Amino acid sequence: MAARTAEPYRGVFPIAPTPFTESGALDLEGQRRVLDCMVDQGVDGICILANYSEQFLLSDHERDQLLELCLGHVAGRVPVIVTCSHYSTDIAVERARRAKAAGAAMLMLMPPYHGAALRADEKGIEEQFARVAEASDLPIMVQDAPLSGVTLSVPFLARLARAVPLVRYFKIEVAGAAAKLRSLIDAGDSAIAGPFDGEESITLMADLDAGATGTMPSALLPDLIKPVLEQHRAGRRDAAAAAYARILPLINYENRQCGLRATKTAMMEGGVISSDFVRHPLERLHPATKAGLLELARPLNPLALRWGK
Amino acid sequence: MAARTAEPYRGVFPIAPTPFTESGALDLEGQRRVLDCMVDQGVDGICILANYSEQFLLSDHERDQLLELCLGHVAGRVPVIVTCSHYSTDIAVERARRAKAAGAAMLMLMPPYHGAALRADEKGIEEQFARVAEASDLPIMVQDAPLSGVTLSVPFLARLARAVPLVRYFKIEVAGAAAKLRSLIDAGDSAIAGPFDGEESITLMADLDAGATGTMPSALLPDLIKPVLEQHRAGRRDAAAAAYARILPLINYENRQCGLRATKTAMMEGGVISSDFVRHPLERLHPATKAGLLELARPLNPLALRWGK
Amino acid sequence: MAARTAEPYRGVFPIAPTPFTESGALDLEGQRRVLDCMVDQGVDGICILANYSEQFLLSDHERDQLLELCLGHVAGRVPVIVTCSHYSTDIAVERARRAKAAGAAMLMLMPPYHGAALRADEKGIEEQFARVAEASDLPIMVQDAPLSGVTLSVPFLARLARAVPLVRYFKIEVAGAAAKLRSLIDAGDSAIAGPFDGEESITLMADLDAGATGTMPSALLPDLIKPVLEQHRAGRRDAAAAAYARILPLINYENRQCGLRATKTAMMEGGVISSDFVRHPLERLHPATKAGLLELARPLNPLALRWGK
Amino acid sequence: MAARTAEPYRGVFPIAPTPFTESGALDLEGQRRVLDCMVDQGVDGICILANYSEQFLLSDHERDQLLELCLGHVAGRVPVIVTCSHYSTDIAVERARRAKAAGAAMLMLMPPYHGAALRADEKGIEEQFARVAEASDLPIMVQDAPLSGVTLSVPFLARLARAVPLVRYFKIEVAGAAAKLRSLIDAGDSAIAGPFDGEESITLMADLDAGATGTMPSALLPDLIKPVLEQHRAGRRDAAAAAYARILPLINYENRQCGLRATKTAMMEGGVISSDFVRHPLERLHPATKAGLLELARPLNPLALRWGK
Repeated sequence: MAARTAEPYRGVFPIAPTPFTESGALDLEGQRRVLDCMVDQGVDGICILANYSEQFLLSDHERDQLLELCLGHVAGRVPVIVTCSHYSTDIAVERARRAKAAGAAMLMLMPPYHGAALRADEKGIEEQFARVAEASDLPIMVQDAPLSGVTLSVPFLARLARAVPLVRYFKIEVAGAAAKLRSLIDAGDSAIAGPFDGEESITLMADLDAGATGTMPSALLPDLIKPVLEQHRAGRRDAAAAAYARILPLINYENRQCGLRATKTAMMEGGVISSDFVRHPLERLHPATKAGLLELARPLNPLALRWGK
Repeated sequence: MAARTAEPYRGVFPIAPTPFTESGALDLEGQRRVLDCMVDQGVDGICILANYSEQFLLSDHERDQLLELCLGHVAGRVPVIVTCSHYSTDIAVERARRAKAAGAAMLMLMPPYHGAALRADEKGIEEQFARVAEASDLPIMVQDAPLSGVTLSVPFLARLARAVPLVRYFKIEVAGAAAKLRSLIDAGDSAIAGPFDGEESITLMADLDAGATGTMPSALLPDLIKPVLEQHRAGRRDAAAAAYARILPLINYENRQCGLRATKTAMMEGGVISSDFVRHPLERLHPATKAGLLELARPLNPLALRWGK
Repeated sequence: MAARTAEPYRGVFPIAPTPFTESGALDLEGQRRVLDCMVDQGVDGICILANYSEQFLLSDHERDQLLELCLGHVAGRVPVIVTCSHYSTDIAVERARRAKAAGAAMLMLMPPYHGAALRADEKGIEEQFARVAEASDLPIMVQDAPLSGVTLSVPFLARLARAVPLVRYFKIEVAGAAAKLRSLIDAGDSAIAGPFDGEESITLMADLDAGATGTMPSALLPDLIKPVLEQHRAGRRDAAAAAYARILPLINYENRQCGLRATKTAMMEGGVISSDFVRHPLERLHPATKAGLLELARPLNPLALRWGK
Repeated sequence: MAARTAEPYRGVFPIAPTPFTESGALDLEGQRRVLDCMVDQGVDGICILANYSEQFLLSDHERDQLLELCLGHVAGRVPVIVTCSHYSTDIAVERARRAKAAGAAMLMLMPPYHGAALRADEKGIEEQFARVAEASDLPIMVQDAPLSGVTLSVPFLARLARAVPLVRYFKIEVAGAAAKLRSLIDAGDSAIAGPFDGEESITLMADLDAGATGTMPSALLPDLIKPVLEQHRAGRRDAAAAAYARILPLINYENRQCGLRATKTAMMEGGVISSDFVRHPLERLHPATKAGLLELARPLNPLALRWGK
């Protein structure tokens, strides 16, 4: 399956990590190397400025820098999804405009939220998505993740997809993702161009069985995740399951013990980036956790572990 | 490793499901069969009336019935942990007394909570645990799970263990469980008799590496989980990891797609119980999800799938 | 305005507190006196087993005792609303049946919830309400309160009222209650028989202006709240506002500093009950808080402060 | 009581609203008029970039503009508190440095949070506060508000105040604020330079009785709130209570029905600003709510309602 540059997008669209120097500054050269490594991983697309990019730890100025750098450096080799989530609709719209101008292929948005208490209702969510769609004329992926604290029902998502046709990709990463994907595909029908999952692909096989056409893992091992989708799509489900079972211990360890730090740890080990620094109040992996991660990763030999060596 | 009947308890202590008839009544004969099956699975102990027992869907009277039935029917074959959590300290104490009288080996408690907003502070939590300890004179396991909505810090848990010596078992089932177990063992030292994990054993290998001495999975496949602990304890970590990798796809599917319904589905398939009924507003597994579960379970052939055939 | 015994119910329907002895047992004689005092307060109805009745601190057996005692003792003097909320639909249905048999005029239900994470979706909520309605054939009040952790949108509440006609009373006690009541009355039209508020009547004037026809305060000062509704209904809004302004400092103190403890404190002071005991992990008011409450209450001379003297 | 320019700060420190034009841009001239109006209200200090300034709807660039404009325009007439909260410690530190350079008298920080799930633990919170203190050498006010989703216990706040001496002001705006202030003053003793409350001063009298020395309301009616503090401090508690009772219906309406929109509505009515625009997904007050607010405000004649006429 070659990288697709036309809709409907499908396949493996990992999140690019944001590398920092040991002093906590953006590592721009490292960012370019991350993107090159990801292209070499054979990804179908790249998502930037997402939660696994530590977007919640970046200033607006840094976001702008990264947007320009990433779109410029990828330079059309694969489509790029730009996360634009913000509680403020105006800021989300402004981010969407910049992303469009820089060459984004798609936008990703969580429903508007701030802290533990500020949330838009369904009317407000639809308004924000509609304004972003109108301002950017780009397809939009709804990120349905617990971090927003918003429950998005399947009937609402289907209505939203019909009301705002550019809203046609859905990254479902909540409990029971496969069942939700199945219901959404049923309820939304042709308005759903891309039912995706996320969460490091920890639910991938079930989601593919439910009809998912794409996944958004980390950049830790997309080269090993891609064959799962390819085999599954080719109707070789047993081969897909076997390929998935082989990498599941690593994905599970990443998902449960490491989060976004797993990719940085592996990419530092593999010479892609020079530091696994994460911004406070996040903390680097405990040495024992790091050792456990690498122990599981090494036998699988993902590209991230050897790209820069 | 034989079932231990003396402290410190360690090993596999699965949660007993609560079977219902198709009309939603307690299936008492089914409950006995569940317990017999679990003893045959070689478990080191059994936990009853927990969340995976649908405790939040039982009346007080049904709780009492189940307590008497389960303790009477297990009859000392393995130690039984009885969950006594309630927002009311008096009710938790009363449950603890009954559990003690019925022959419980240990109690399990979440910190007091009700709904989205009612929580005790650290002083109130310690008071509840102290009163339950005093009333029962039984060892207590703290269940540290997201359902309570209470964040239990490692320093607080260590203080609690020192202040109330009967509080010496800890079931850690939050994000980053292994790291929390490692910190807790370090901070609590000899006050921590049993660092356990839960969540269907989805984090088991990492938790064993961190020092966990027990796990509280469902009753779906404890016979296949137990060798992981045995190999690990015997110093054969590679064998443990291999045994774990083999069952991980099933555990992951259970953890993410099924929850407490997985065990019921398997036990019905295996003739242990006659119905996979769960109480509303829970819903039985979608047929596709059920099929996916059984497809992963069959090649592993856990006892639950064949015990009653 | 005399106590109404026919629908649509309107007016002041306070929550009955549950008195305990100093040792924490139910004070049944005190409970009777509480109800007599409330009837003497001129209430239009009484709600029992609600959150301000410490329902989350009662055993099922105690609930049954209180249900029989309260319905028997009120004996039709005023209509009684019985709270039946439970995560389990079967238990809510069983509670509804008992309430019906005991003579309840109405039921009150929160949407099903347990702890921080277990919630039904809109389909599940409607199913629970429909089953309770069918089993009891009694009008139902939806309690829309933060404790459930469920966001109930106005479109959903209006759909629910149309789908289950017995669901026709709504106690709105969320931020922006008046605006929500206004929207609900507009969207639900004739399906809304009783738009009420709650929260100690802290938002009463705004809610009456928005169309509320009833309020569910505590039993601290319903005799002083009732004139606000009467004046407002008679078109004397200035007099209503003046009557409300006079009692607002006390209501505000109750709402912010005391919660359910305010009524117990006042009723003990007034000789209605012999103890202001609340069940652990709740704690009695700090002496300074108690003094502040009584200082504000005394000049207003509500019946609760003098009924038993 | 004249405006104090030296520590310990005490008195009325309202939040400055951020005015927008009808098209949603910053209204810089309006911002200057807001500040002038607030100085004329006799405030003891001004807090900027807080939640009631819609900080969660501002870009970083707008924050910087507002910081420079506000500090420059106030020009030392009263001390200015600058809110610097961010999940990222580095960004909070950078905001603190800029605030210091611009002339801030104090900083305000919530504990680090993002969305529904990302929170620092107590160690991480203390580290962020310590780094901000070290970078700015300014006194810091801890904002203890539900929006952060973080429970800050009194023992932790007291430890924090001792560990980081610049952390010596506390804005307590959680349920039971007065009781928490009383406990905090007792536990923290001389490490607590300023126990304040917030929430539109809805709990002011109880908090002053508990020992609060300052309050952080909105800019709706600080001229009418200030006498409450002055009378209370002068030992004329009855006069304070009477002054407070007079304004309580308005404060209650603001707190429950309007939030940050109340001040904008009043200031537009009073000619201070030309628009009551709030940024999406917030919505302007419903006309009926606006009418209700003004009806309560007019007889009290706060300066905001007439300053620009």
